Amino acid sequence: MNAASPAPDPGLAPSYAELTRVHSRLYRYNHVSSIVGWDRNAMMPPRGSEARAAAEAELHALIHRTRTDSRLADWLRAAEAEPLDEVARANLREMRRDWREANALPESLVEAKTLAGARCEHAWRSQRPANDWRGFLENFREVVRLAREEARLLADDTGLSRYDALMDRYEPGVRAADIDRIFGDVREWLPDLITRARARQSHEKVIAPKGPFPVAAQRALNLEVMTLLGFDFSAGRLDESAHPFSGGVPEDVRLTTRYHESDFARSLLGTIHETGHARYEQNLPRDWLGQPVGAARSYGVHESQSLSFEMQLARSRAFVGLLAPLLIRHFGDRPAFEPDNLYRLWTRVTPGLIRVDADEVTYPAHVILRYEIERALIEGGIEAEDIPALWDEKMQALLGLDTRGNYKDGCLQDAHWTEGAFGYFPSYTLGAMYAAQWFAAMRRAAPDLDARIAAGDLAPVFEWLRANIWSQACLWETPELVRRASGEALAPRHFRAHLETRYL
Amino acid sequence: MNAASPAPDPGLAPSYAELTRVHSRLYRYNHVSSIVGWDRNAMMPPRGSEARAAAEAELHALIHRTRTDSRLADWLRAAEAEPLDEVARANLREMRRDWREANALPESLVEAKTLAGARCEHAWRSQRPANDWRGFLENFREVVRLAREEARLLADDTGLSRYDALMDRYEPGVRAADIDRIFGDVREWLPDLITRARARQSHEKVIAPKGPFPVAAQRALNLEVMTLLGFDFSAGRLDESAHPFSGGVPEDVRLTTRYHESDFARSLLGTIHETGHARYEQNLPRDWLGQPVGAARSYGVHESQSLSFEMQLARSRAFVGLLAPLLIRHFGDRPAFEPDNLYRLWTRVTPGLIRVDADEVTYPAHVILRYEIERALIEGGIEAEDIPALWDEKMQALLGLDTRGNYKDGCLQDAHWTEGAFGYFPSYTLGAMYAAQWFAAMRRAAPDLDARIAAGDLAPVFEWLRANIWSQACLWETPELVRRASGEALAPRHFRAHLETRYL
Repeated sequence: MNAASPAPDPGLAPSYAELTRVHSRLYRYNHVSSIVGWDRNAMMPPRGSEARAAAEAELHALIHRTRTDSRLADWLRAAEAEPLDEVARANLREMRRDWREANALPESLVEAKTLAGARCEHAWRSQRPANDWRGFLENFREVVRLAREEARLLADDTGLSRYDALMDRYEPGVRAADIDRIFGDVREWLPDLITRARARQSHEKVIAPKGPFPVAAQRALNLEVMTLLGFDFSAGRLDESAHPFSGGVPEDVRLTTRYHESDFARSLLGTIHETGHARYEQNLPRDWLGQPVGAARSYGVHESQSLSFEMQLARSRAFVGLLAPLLIRHFGDRPAFEPDNLYRLWTRVTPGLIRVDADEVTYPAHVILRYEIERALIEGGIEAEDIPALWDEKMQALLGLDTRGNYKDGCLQDAHWTEGAFGYFPSYTLGAMYAAQWFAAMRRAAPDLDARIAAGDLAPVFEWLRANIWSQACLWETPELVRRASGEALAPRHFRAHLETRYL
Repeated sequence: MNAASPAPDPGLAPSYAELTRVHSRLYRYNHVSSIVGWDRNAMMPPRGSEARAAAEAELHALIHRTRTDSRLADWLRAAEAEPLDEVARANLREMRRDWREANALPESLVEAKTLAGARCEHAWRSQRPANDWRGFLENFREVVRLAREEARLLADDTGLSRYDALMDRYEPGVRAADIDRIFGDVREWLPDLITRARARQSHEKVIAPKGPFPVAAQRALNLEVMTLLGFDFSAGRLDESAHPFSGGVPEDVRLTTRYHESDFARSLLGTIHETGHARYEQNLPRDWLGQPVGAARSYGVHESQSLSFEMQLARSRAFVGLLAPLLIRHFGDRPAFEPDNLYRLWTRVTPGLIRVDADEVTYPAHVILRYEIERALIEGGIEAEDIPALWDEKMQALLGLDTRGNYKDGCLQDAHWTEGAFGYFPSYTLGAMYAAQWFAAMRRAAPDLDARIAAGDLAPVFEWLRANIWSQACLWETPELVRRASGEALAPRHFRAHLETRYL
């Protein structure tokens, strides 16, 4: 499938060949950085942290020096005129993106941003439980000021608008105009869909499983489900960490989870989510690994893999039927494990204040709200002090919830803004929408998809993802990848149809 | 105790300050290298190895470039004339040693050695079980040729003799003349001591503990004994690996062990051994960490710590009395756990063919034999094909064992020569002798040492080691460290007295 190589004849493309050498080196430095980062989160004892921080900072400085080597600009320019095939040309495009990202900002700004973000985040840890918006604002104003400065410089550099320039780092090729169109559409029908789904579910009886669920049994269950989902344990691991994540490198993916004895589903569904990320990484084209074209496409596309696994697949009635016998085997038989009950439980719609606890249906409301606020904030239409009033207004409009005065469960709940990461939130909902679009395409290709899943045959899902997403890595920018994979641009109607089918 | 800092005023010592900056960076690169090396052995799944090898090689190349930076030579020269205190001067001495070691050999030789060693080691894995000395010799001749070339270049560079130049990398300041004196002395009395110990033990009844010993119980026991031995779990971990080792960094020490269900003592005593290494690392002076003067002194001194814990302390009658109740708690009561029986079991003298399985009394014979052979081999007095005959002759003389034709349990048993590491073997027995000398000094300072150990008070041991070894790091070369710690040069009579007290 990926016959073309990202490294053509160096005789014909000497500058491009130099660039591939630098990127091979960067790939290896990043490998090391990724493994020690995983270790820090999953293995490192507390007193190791000071020396580790110094070692990681040294490594990051080295990586930054490599990405900003003064010879790269000339090589990038010269390589444009060299005879390159399609893969190499895509690789060159990604090299240029990496170079631009590394060089766009003066080091003084990067340092100031890191410092202000760290200070704001550190104070936030106690300000959030204290509901202290005023105190937070004191640090946060500086974070916003620096993020605007960053957006201005990135915009100057790329020719994009300021918010687009921030978002482009996470979702290459996707613009605020696209998001406006897509989120504008969702805003039209989502509140009504939530109301109707809740009305329907109000008549359902649901039995919640009662713990304790021993950690050893949960771990054994998770490993078995990961195997069912095709995770390659000869090229990856599952461990524990306070904040679950998918780390490591494509050749050696490190997932983590966290066990709660009272609730097995949190770890199980989280592990399934991370397994989606993992399979993307484990199945990137081997021949391209080491070069930018061989990396995963974007945050949104990555999230489309985790949500394909967690939302599209694992919470489907067909898959729940596969899970039930495993739950019984690991925890003993219980009425709550009856598949129809489990399905009702895992598709329950409950508007709430907290984004990370939101269900599939109400989640986009949390993202739309954040997108609208952060975009205005970066573009200067509002100031930091305007956030709470806007938050209250939008939570009321989108989810019918009152958040007045409740900062800690409102605008203080996320770490993203706190640390100065603006432009990221849309990726979550783009991921959910891509996933719905992938499954719509899969069902066109395999109309009996749900029957096959119910029978334990997940191959049609994996093969579609492999052919259309995993094997494509960074060959195309996101919008083109979407078109090639699903035959059309991102269209929110697939997400809407998915929600209507599952919830109405 | 270590008030002086390795980093004096950069205004007064600008070249020395530059050197400390380079070494801080090296320390951080080595931190990362050490953690990913630990991960490779303790955590990495098999399919991660290819990408890991490439990443580690890239990191090693970076470290090598840093150590051979062309500006270092000038800075080293200029720093000699700068006003430096005692610690800084020792640091400069170690910086020079590091520089010399990194620069003494042309890269082509280092590469050829690595390649020849890897080829020889790879073939050895199947040649050893096949008892194939002839086949081994084909690769091994090239390993010897390159090691001689290496020794010649190092000798030219240091002004030492060839074997001394190799040994100096492991045991700075110790010379073959010292080893001749020490091992010559041991050779005089050891065979007779072995005979007398065996005669005495032939009348003893020993009960061997019968397994299985569940892995979870062994692990819990190991953790408890490590705690008893002062291991700081907030700055280190215990995990599993095929070949147990002590890795990580001083701020975060990573021990590994391997469990055998039929034999708990192998993992327990191995873990105690590694804990000795670990406490040395964990207690190096914090102010010096990051600079060469802050590192552990040498392989022999390191081994003196592991053997202080494993041989001097853990196999003593006093300590065995502390262990017995723990064994009963973790495995249930058994006649074999009676302290006198355990002590007899763990001090059993049994001449055997295999070095790594040897007891405390016969171990030096294995090392002396290897020292005599490898020194002659490096100096050109013998050739590779002469090894088996010498091996047979020396095994007969030292341990009374017949090894004729049995290469696999004879000269093919170790990986050291196979990989081209000559000059290392003496460190094992130097370590055992240092450890005996430390405990002799401890007993002079605390005549009731054994009574205190028997009462569970290990503080006199730890405090002596902390004051005399751990806190001294690389401030002195090994012979001076020995004199300062114990009041005299290394004297084999302490080791002899220890063996006579314990075994006769």
